[in-house]
Amino acid sequence: MKINETRLKKRMDEINGISVTEDGGMMRLALSDADKKARDLLVTWMKAGGMEVKVDDMGTVYGVLKGTDPDASPIYVGSHMDTQPNGGRFDGFFGVMAALESIISIKESNINLKSDLVLADWTNEEGARFVPPMLASGVISGQFEKQWVYDKQDIDGIRYEDELIRIGYKGDERNRMTKAKAYLEPHIEQGPVLDSLGKEMGIVTGALGITGLDVIIRGEANHAGTTPMSHRIDALEIASDAILRIQENCREFGEPAVITVGRIEAKPSSKNIVPGEVYFSIDLRYHTDEGMALLEEQTCNIIEKVCAKHGASVEIKRYWRAAPAVFNEKIVNCVAEAADENGLDSMKIISGAGHDAVFINDVVPTGMIFVPSIKGMSHCPQENTEWKDIVKGTEVTADVLIKLDSIEI
Amino acid sequence: MKINETRLKKRMDEINGISVTEDGGMMRLALSDADKKARDLLVTWMKAGGMEVKVDDMGTVYGVLKGTDPDASPIYVGSHMDTQPNGGRFDGFFGVMAALESIISIKESNINLKSDLVLADWTNEEGARFVPPMLASGVISGQFEKQWVYDKQDIDGIRYEDELIRIGYKGDERNRMTKAKAYLEPHIEQGPVLDSLGKEMGIVTGALGITGLDVIIRGEANHAGTTPMSHRIDALEIASDAILRIQENCREFGEPAVITVGRIEAKPSSKNIVPGEVYFSIDLRYHTDEGMALLEEQTCNIIEKVCAKHGASVEIKRYWRAAPAVFNEKIVNCVAEAADENGLDSMKIISGAGHDAVFINDVVPTGMIFVPSIKGMSHCPQENTEWKDIVKGTEVTADVLIKLDSIEI
Repeated sequence: MKINETRLKKRMDEINGISVTEDGGMMRLALSDADKKARDLLVTWMKAGGMEVKVDDMGTVYGVLKGTDPDASPIYVGSHMDTQPNGGRFDGFFGVMAALESIISIKESNINLKSDLVLADWTNEEGARFVPPMLASGVISGQFEKQWVYDKQDIDGIRYEDELIRIGYKGDERNRMTKAKAYLEPHIEQGPVLDSLGKEMGIVTGALGITGLDVIIRGEANHAGTTPMSHRIDALEIASDAILRIQENCREFGEPAVITVGRIEAKPSSKNIVPGEVYFSIDLRYHTDEGMALLEEQTCNIIEKVCAKHGASVEIKRYWRAAPAVFNEKIVNCVAEAADENGLDSMKIISGAGHDAVFINDVVPTGMIFVPSIKGMSHCPQENTEWKDIVKGTEVTADVLIKLDSIEI
Repeated sequence: MKINETRLKKRMDEINGISVTEDGGMMRLALSDADKKARDLLVTWMKAGGMEVKVDDMGTVYGVLKGTDPDASPIYVGSHMDTQPNGGRFDGFFGVMAALESIISIKESNINLKSDLVLADWTNEEGARFVPPMLASGVISGQFEKQWVYDKQDIDGIRYEDELIRIGYKGDERNRMTKAKAYLEPHIEQGPVLDSLGKEMGIVTGALGITGLDVIIRGEANHAGTTPMSHRIDALEIASDAILRIQENCREFGEPAVITVGRIEAKPSSKNIVPGEVYFSIDLRYHTDEGMALLEEQTCNIIEKVCAKHGASVEIKRYWRAAPAVFNEKIVNCVAEAADENGLDSMKIISGAGHDAVFINDVVPTGMIFVPSIKGMSHCPQENTEWKDIVKGTEVTADVLIKLDSIEI
């Protein structure tokens, strides 16, 4: 269905104008003054659109468009408005605005749905201000304890709960998402796949699981001048060998497997001392539990073998594991149908990033819609999506909501 | 010749007892109170041994045993007493004490040499307190300007010159080493070669030249989850590849070539972001100018080729170059003869580390004697040399001084 493109653009520009960095990036950290201003505008627009506004105890803002059947479970749609520091214009924010515009367009088109349509703006998805990410959806899905989240502090020692109270968005636990029929999250891809293949939409079938490993390789620190190459147990040379081999193995393992070594530290970190110890991180992702476990095992074996060959010792610790998500098949099908009916060139895709939808999927049938990210840029001012794709994404969102109302899930 | 082993041991223990760390390491930073106490003891012992004491404007302490021929150029022998923080018991200090004991033993043996024998205790060899190393010998050899050295500050902002004055060791420029016939520096190897081959002494023929490079590889920072392996330009994976290949090439280049990558930094250094930029240092050493230039060229070519293959850009800057040193052949021969005459199992060796002798070699005929370092340990409390090797090293030092007096150089 057609949505009001002009209104959508005007509203997005208004919120994206609240706090802009020198580079043109967004600075809307969770529960900051900028976040409060964005929430206030959202609340105003929801009320103006005939929606009832509620806030839950984690600060998540809901806007309810009443359905005709009081017995029908509500359908949720949304994302988050908080950003990374110097983040992009569409990450998260697109999903909230697509939800708002599609709900209001449905109402204005006099289409009466049985279910309530509920917009959700989740608190602190980015994890940029309060670590870790997805704190509000994490509580809803039972991943985190409420009090633990309340006590989370930002780098200035300010508590999550205190900021909720300060900006006036500490609501009631009774307002939380419950007994939902479905949750739909429209989002930018944050990766290069759709853009590089010229696709207009991604039908998201699930999300990669994540395994996080910390690796410490211990060799022998030695003088850079007096230690012949043949007498060295150079922890950095060994780490380099291991990093190359585990990434080569990951490529052979096949897509969507990814391995990232994002952090590395050599000790003592002196230009003229052979490194005696090297730490590096591994972020390993795959879309099935068994596959992820297998890739983790192979990765550890490769590192251990390389270290043993060079006479170094190694310690590998798993610090994080998030299971892969498989989204609800019926919702995935609704997204695929709606994309087809809108004449879009779409493809099935697995999300490599974490989203509120990944947590919500544990407790509510869930699906996602991806719009393309130009060159896959994300978490930076250069993040961008063509405006026509934002409009198409919003229209498909409306169509999927209508479809979800009509089917059994 | 026999030296007074008991006196040598007692004196070494006394100075090594001045400032000991929890780990049993030495803490005798240049121009610190501990260094002053060590200098004061050295001065006392030199005077007691009938030597005339002088201090030059860089703080270097000299002790002169007068020769019989006023026209003969003096023969210098020594090293340094400053240590690394938590350093070893023999690094530098052995050379000073071997010089003291051998000069006094020569005097006590009523051997009259034509040349003055001059002990030299160079200031700030380690570069641990005032960067860079070998500041005093660097001024003598014309590498550094006096005022530039005077203005060097430690991490607390205290000036070299002010500390010289504070501890009472700012002497006269006229006392500097001049018109010397030879300079001999006994030192521990600080490497594993002699120890691993079971050798008792190293006849040092020169020192490796050093080329220092800073390398920055620029790829593309990307999301660890949403960027398929095929879409990445991972600066750390590329750096790993380059590091492995340049070290493999160095091994093929052959000994004594060494390459050390001691520092590495990945940016943005986040566990879930593919590194967009990696910095690493290269310390490359070889014993000939031409060979060092060739190895540097090969090393840069390899890095550039690896980067080009992966679509990354690279910037390589040379921040340091010290030419290889070739010691005086006649002095080297004197050391070899003395080692043989003492029945020692010795070998020719090239120093991989920098020493005052490397700078002094530019202006005075120079040679070095190495005693073994157990397991090659250095700059740490575990640094050690067997006592018999300390004694043998001192006796050979005395014998070399006698030989140097008798030959033309």
